[in-house]
Amino acid sequence: MKSRSDLSKMGKIEVVVSGSDAPAVREVFKAVGVTGFTSVSGVSGLGHGGYHQGRLLFNDQATLEMLITVVPEEKIDSLLAGLRPLLEESSGVMFLSDTYVSRPDYFT
Amino acid sequence: MKSRSDLSKMGKIEVVVSGSDAPAVREVFKAVGVTGFTSVSGVSGLGHGGYHQGRLLFNDQATLEMLITVVPEEKIDSLLAGLRPLLEESSGVMFLSDTYVSRPDYFT
Amino acid sequence: MKSRSDLSKMGKIEVVVSGSDAPAVREVFKAVGVTGFTSVSGVSGLGHGGYHQGRLLFNDQATLEMLITVVPEEKIDSLLAGLRPLLEESSGVMFLSDTYVSRPDYFT
Repeated sequence: MKSRSDLSKMGKIEVVVSGSDAPAVREVFKAVGVTGFTSVSGVSGLGHGGYHQGRLLFNDQATLEMLITVVPEEKIDSLLAGLRPLLEESSGVMFLSDTYVSRPDYFT
Repeated sequence: MKSRSDLSKMGKIEVVVSGSDAPAVREVFKAVGVTGFTSVSGVSGLGHGGYHQGRLLFNDQATLEMLITVVPEEKIDSLLAGLRPLLEESSGVMFLSDTYVSRPDYFT
Repeated sequence: MKSRSDLSKMGKIEVVVSGSDAPAVREVFKAVGVTGFTSVSGVSGLGHGGYHQGRLLFNDQATLEMLITVVPEEKIDSLLAGLRPLLEESSGVMFLSDTYVSRPDYFT
């Protein structure tokens, strides 16, 4: 396999928040120096907090936005630190996964 | 890097099914004790089965739904077991990936 | 954990491009022998190139499409090779991640 060796390992961060919290997420991205992101609309979800608190029935889905960004390892900590307080106040969730890109300069 | 050590490793399961099969997927999530999920609409796809069977032209895309959930390792087996028969009957697909979250209690 | 051992490791490739470049991405998928893919509309984004070049304000998002495909390891190199020139001309991005599937024959 030469695939992986041609590529650079990065962190992919996916954030799912209510539409009203999305601008604050983008502000964190900007503050941390994220060079780009993808935003998916038409997203609904059963929030983890919501389900636990019994506020929502299982099929009662809130309108959400998913924001995806890919950053080099050295930006992950500050991005997570910036997002954490935001997600604690809201019912948003965040996932970090490993991913590989062919043009790391696009993301730094 | 302290990023990963602050986080908990989980399994992210992405399921892509026809809109009519999505409620059955949500039922499996609920039965297994999934605490939340994200659902993406506006998804189309060229099903793997469909292309193989020659029923669809390559640009003839069906309307689908993508459901994403993140669960602790100990729930992965039962979730996969619950989804497998459903996906075998339909033309859906399922991917399991490693992911990391900052608040594991949200997902258990 | 028996989860992982029941599953086959594959490469998940996510491509985010402008809607007008999406057909060319699907052509590459077809040429490489991809057996299926998922396409997400309702995607906007702040392109990495765009932000760097100052052509877009941070909240000025372009309409994009995200295409997701899962392929066996031996197809990754040719898929990346086919997509690279396309992405270099456009402002698209591509991520490769490890994923696991239960029915590898669907993807080969």
